[in-house]
Amino acid sequence: MSDLTPELLALSVRADAALARVLPDEHQPPVELHRAMRYAVLGGGKRLRPLLVYATGSAFGATPEKLDAVAAAVEIIHAYSLVHDDLPAMDDDSLRRGRPTCHIVFGEAMAILAGDALQALAFEVLANDATLDVDAATRLDMLRTLATACGSQGMAGGQAFDLAAVGHKLDAAELERMHVHKTGALIRASVRLGALAAGCTDTATLAALETYGHSIGLAFQIRDDLLDIEAETSQLGKTAGKDAAANKPTYPAILGVDASRAELAALTTAALNAVEPLGAAAAPLRELAHFVAERAN
Amino acid sequence: MSDLTPELLALSVRADAALARVLPDEHQPPVELHRAMRYAVLGGGKRLRPLLVYATGSAFGATPEKLDAVAAAVEIIHAYSLVHDDLPAMDDDSLRRGRPTCHIVFGEAMAILAGDALQALAFEVLANDATLDVDAATRLDMLRTLATACGSQGMAGGQAFDLAAVGHKLDAAELERMHVHKTGALIRASVRLGALAAGCTDTATLAALETYGHSIGLAFQIRDDLLDIEAETSQLGKTAGKDAAANKPTYPAILGVDASRAELAALTTAALNAVEPLGAAAAPLRELAHFVAERAN
Repeated sequence: MSDLTPELLALSVRADAALARVLPDEHQPPVELHRAMRYAVLGGGKRLRPLLVYATGSAFGATPEKLDAVAAAVEIIHAYSLVHDDLPAMDDDSLRRGRPTCHIVFGEAMAILAGDALQALAFEVLANDATLDVDAATRLDMLRTLATACGSQGMAGGQAFDLAAVGHKLDAAELERMHVHKTGALIRASVRLGALAAGCTDTATLAALETYGHSIGLAFQIRDDLLDIEAETSQLGKTAGKDAAANKPTYPAILGVDASRAELAALTTAALNAVEPLGAAAAPLRELAHFVAERAN
Repeated sequence: MSDLTPELLALSVRADAALARVLPDEHQPPVELHRAMRYAVLGGGKRLRPLLVYATGSAFGATPEKLDAVAAAVEIIHAYSLVHDDLPAMDDDSLRRGRPTCHIVFGEAMAILAGDALQALAFEVLANDATLDVDAATRLDMLRTLATACGSQGMAGGQAFDLAAVGHKLDAAELERMHVHKTGALIRASVRLGALAAGCTDTATLAALETYGHSIGLAFQIRDDLLDIEAETSQLGKTAGKDAAANKPTYPAILGVDASRAELAALTTAALNAVEPLGAAAAPLRELAHFVAERAN
């Protein structure tokens, strides 16, 4: 069982403030769309992706001020993906982070639009925000990183693999491919974006960070699958036992519970090893690796 | 009644080739998502937005080769918006460009994802494509332009105004606001992106082009509304008379048919006046203004 350290918790609160700043004012038209966008993003959540941005950026000396826009951008993408995932035509979920999902509150059409507008907003923030202090070439690299992570070779592709998997038996490799895309792509991108925002351009270091992101991305999913069979709905803030009920492929179902736990431990070790050369500056990245592996919700 | 000139028709074919090049291979996984993306984009259409890119770029001396990626990016955004607009929760349309809509062929969940992945792809193409030969600062300006045009102050915002309008009586100003966002934002962006891709940075010229884009964007919508009450389904390739049946606000319904035609003529004149100083090089922009106002489908 692991909670966020006070320092990481403070950064998670900081991410909320950054998000509140870059999201459109809900008193400005179109009011209902802006309300739906803010509802979808500001409803709590672990803020793992912003924390990865802050943790990676700080490992290369960037202040939180320089990382706020990037932290907000990756969380906005994550929030948009949740809004669309929860739609009746997708996972049809009515509860998220302990609250009614966006389409329950605002209707399906507005939820689709809110997700669409959030995706655009993330790119706008990365392209535009003045607090992100990098040269144009680095900013372009960041936009490329985010776009690739969102597209058919990233998160949206992972969702498509997920759709294709329902009702089929996946093997371990197919399950991993799905998660490497579905949640892994944006997690890896968050780590890389934090590094780029902090001025890290060393290829070997970026490759090590890719390994870190890849490992905790999969670890996150295995922990998620284990929690789904272990935890209660009230603890998760979303419907527990849903994966098994929907006959969705999960690590425990395919590898077994013990092998899933062993894989989770191995991935965590791989993540820790990858950032070992960064020394003391990478302490927050280590704490996040432990948090991902040991979290209770 | 107006058709595209042979030169513009050739550029529309050229846009198709550019789109086919930048869209993901449908033999690469996730296969079904890639099929849905290609189906949504390569199903014909007037390619008005790519034509605006080519026409504007050529007015500043850019070859079509330098404009292909930009032309593809704006059409990909347009195609994604159509896929989401056609969803059952939105306009619930089963026919588009004379073919079954994306969700009819691939299912609702895949259509949502295809739209999402297409939006990401457009940003990826603009951020990444090597045939777009501009410096990093200009490329960033282009990404900002596209992101703003797609978001809550652009196309997605226009959709939200549209949603809010169903069942309400709009006045002419509210109708214009809806269209300035819903279709106008991406049309204006297409013009601006063509100019930026061609190296035009003169503020006054970009402002004149904004007027051109604004005018033909509204003209396009008025012509659309007039066609909806004049034309047959077979001619339109989509369901005719649908606006009136859905009690949607239209120019003819709010201004009357004659005043709508007069407004269309005034907007066309405004568009032509805006590009008058560009001289002979702006001939394709003039042809497009006429096409938009006089098209039969």
